[in-house]
Amino acid sequence: MTDALSPTSQSSPPPAAAAPGEPTAGGLLTAHLTAQAGAFLRALPSLRGEHGGRPGEADEQTGDLLRCVRRVGGALHTFAPAVEAGWAQELRDELRWLLDLLTQEPACNRRLARLLGALDSLTGAAAPDRLPAQRGDERQAATGMLAGHPGAAKARALLERQLTVVRARVHTSALQELRSARLHALADRMTLLTGEVPLAVPSDTPADEVLLPGAAAALRALARSAEALPLLRVGAAYNGDALHRLRAEAPLPDADSALGTDDAPWLRVRILAKRARYALEVCGPLLAGQATVTATRLAALGRVLDRHQEAADAAATAAAAARTPRITPATAYVLGVLHADQRLEVEAARYGFGRQWQELSASAGAEWPLL
Amino acid sequence: MTDALSPTSQSSPPPAAAAPGEPTAGGLLTAHLTAQAGAFLRALPSLRGEHGGRPGEADEQTGDLLRCVRRVGGALHTFAPAVEAGWAQELRDELRWLLDLLTQEPACNRRLARLLGALDSLTGAAAPDRLPAQRGDERQAATGMLAGHPGAAKARALLERQLTVVRARVHTSALQELRSARLHALADRMTLLTGEVPLAVPSDTPADEVLLPGAAAALRALARSAEALPLLRVGAAYNGDALHRLRAEAPLPDADSALGTDDAPWLRVRILAKRARYALEVCGPLLAGQATVTATRLAALGRVLDRHQEAADAAATAAAAARTPRITPATAYVLGVLHADQRLEVEAARYGFGRQWQELSASAGAEWPLL
Repeated sequence: MTDALSPTSQSSPPPAAAAPGEPTAGGLLTAHLTAQAGAFLRALPSLRGEHGGRPGEADEQTGDLLRCVRRVGGALHTFAPAVEAGWAQELRDELRWLLDLLTQEPACNRRLARLLGALDSLTGAAAPDRLPAQRGDERQAATGMLAGHPGAAKARALLERQLTVVRARVHTSALQELRSARLHALADRMTLLTGEVPLAVPSDTPADEVLLPGAAAALRALARSAEALPLLRVGAAYNGDALHRLRAEAPLPDADSALGTDDAPWLRVRILAKRARYALEVCGPLLAGQATVTATRLAALGRVLDRHQEAADAAATAAAAARTPRITPATAYVLGVLHADQRLEVEAARYGFGRQWQELSASAGAEWPLL
Repeated sequence: MTDALSPTSQSSPPPAAAAPGEPTAGGLLTAHLTAQAGAFLRALPSLRGEHGGRPGEADEQTGDLLRCVRRVGGALHTFAPAVEAGWAQELRDELRWLLDLLTQEPACNRRLARLLGALDSLTGAAAPDRLPAQRGDERQAATGMLAGHPGAAKARALLERQLTVVRARVHTSALQELRSARLHALADRMTLLTGEVPLAVPSDTPADEVLLPGAAAALRALARSAEALPLLRVGAAYNGDALHRLRAEAPLPDADSALGTDDAPWLRVRILAKRARYALEVCGPLLAGQATVTATRLAALGRVLDRHQEAADAAATAAAAARTPRITPATAYVLGVLHADQRLEVEAARYGFGRQWQELSASAGAEWPLL
C-alpha cells in the first residue's frame, strides 16, 4: 500500500506553532478519536450480550460500534504521521480483526436477501408496488424472465440452505472469538484512547498543517485509484454489447465468496472512498462547511460501491451454488440467470460510479483548491 | 391493423390536377414499383439455382430480391389509396409468403452465429482484437463470466445441433415451396408490374397530394407506436435494477422462436420503421433532400430494431435449449447465463432505440412540417 501522505509531508515546510486559539492537529485528532472511542465503549455491551431488552437494540448498537471501528481505523491510517506509529498499527490490526468478525454475518444476511429478492423479481413473485411508479399498462406487462420456471423454487431452497449453513458457521465462530481475551484487550485499548491519544507531532502543531494535507492526500489516493478504473468502458451504458463484456470471476473460483480479479480494484476504491469521507469528517471543524457537497457525494459514492460489492459477492455465490453436485438442470439454469443478473447489477453500479465520480471530482476541485 | 392513412385521405380536399411538368402520384409510384419489379426479376434466378458461378453471388442476389420484396410490399401498404385495392392485397400476400420463406434460413444462421459469438465472448474465447480499442491494461483484464466453465462446450454443441436441425428443416421446406407454381405465379405478377401499375387515382393527380400525406401518415403511425413503448423505463440505463426488470418471454414459451408478449410492440415498431423509410424513398423526388437526416436516422433505427429482434429471438432459443431433456446442470447453467446475456442485449437495444428515437422525432419535426 502506497502511503499517499508521504509526498505531501515530505514537501511541506516544518510545521509552525499554532497561534493561541487556533486549532491544533493534536487537539482535533484527540477530540475525534476520544469521541469515537467513547461511542465504541457505549456500544460494546451489545457484543457481550449485555444490551437492553428493546428489540433490534443489539443490532443498532453493533452498527454504532462498527461505525466507530471504521472511523478510528480510517483516521489512524489517514493521519498516520500525526500519531505514534507502533501504537496505531497495533490498534488498526485489532480493529480490522473485529470488523471482519462482525461484518460476516450481516453480509451473509444481505447476500441471501439480495439473491432471494432477485429471484422473486425474476420470477415475477415480487410485489408490483416495489416497481418504480410508471404508467399502469407498463406495470401490468411485468413478467419476470423466470416466470413459472420449474427451477426457481429449487434454486431458492438451495441458496437458502447453503447460506443458512454459512451464516450458522460464521455466527458460531464469531461468538467464540468475541468471548476471547482479544476483545477484552481491544476494549482496554479503547478505554485508554478515551483519555489520551499517543501523538507524534508537537502539541502546538496547527491543525491545518497536518490534517488538511492528510485529508487531501486521502482524496488524491481515491482519485488516483478511481481514475485507473475502466471508467470509459463502464461509462457507456450496456457497454455496447451485453454481458459478453462483463469480466467476472476468475475461472472457477472455489470459495463461495471468491470475487473476480476484475472486481478487486473496485473494492479497493470502496475502501479509499470511505477513508476520504472519514478524513473530511475529522477536518470538519477546519473546513467551515467548505467541503459539504464533496462529503455528501462521497457518501453517495460509498453507497454505490457497497452495492457493487454486494452484487459481486452475490454473483459469486450464485455461481458457486451452481457447482453443487447433483442439482437439476432447471436449478442450474436459474442460477445461471441469477449469476448474470447480479453481474449486471455489478455493471450497473460501475456505470453509476462513473457518473457520480465525474460530479464528485468536479465538486472536490471547486470546493477544495488543496487537491 | 389501423390504416394510418384513412384520416388524412378523408380530410384532404379532392386532388387537383397536376400542372404540366409537375410529378403525378401515378407517375412516381409507377416509376418506383416498376423499377423494384425489374430488380426483383433480375435477382430471381438465384432462387431457381440459375445464378452465376461467382461465390456468394446467389446470396447477394437473394438479398437484392428481398430488398425489392420489402419495398414493393411497403409501398403498396403505405400508398394503398393510390393503387387498386384487390390487386395490391393479393400481391402483398404473395410477397409476404416469399419474404417468410426466404428469411428463415438466414435468420437461423444469424441466430446461431449470435449465440456462438456470445458464448465465445462469455468464455473469453473471442479474439481480443474484437474488443473496442481501449487502454492495454483494460484489454488484458478481459475474462468472460463463463471462462473455463465445463458446460460451455456442451452448450455450444447443443445449440449447434439444434439450430442445424432447424436450418435443415427450413431449407428443405423452402426448396420445395420455391419449386411450386406459387413462385411462378408471383414472378408473372412482377413481370406485369414492370409494365403497368393498376392505379386507383386519376393519372393527373399531383404526387404531393397523395404521396406526401401517405409518407407522413407512415411516420405518424411509427411515432404513435414508438411513443407507446415504455421509453421512460428503458431510457434509464440498466433500469436501476438489473435484469429483474427485463420482462422477457411469456411463461415457458413452447416453440423455439416464441417471443414474449413484451417484445411484440417492439417488433411491430420495427415494421413501421421500415415502412416509413421505404415511404420516404418513394417520396425522394418530391422532397429535394428535405428529409435526408430523417431518412438516415430511420435506417439507424431499423438497425437497432433488427438487433432487438435478433437478440429476443436468440434469448428464446437459449431458453428453449435449456428445456432439452437430459442435459447436464452445467449445460443448463451456461444456457441460463446466455439467455440473460441476450435479454440484456434486448434491453440495450431498447435503450439505444430510446435515444435514437428522440433524435429522430426532433429531426423529422424540423425537416418536415407535414408531420
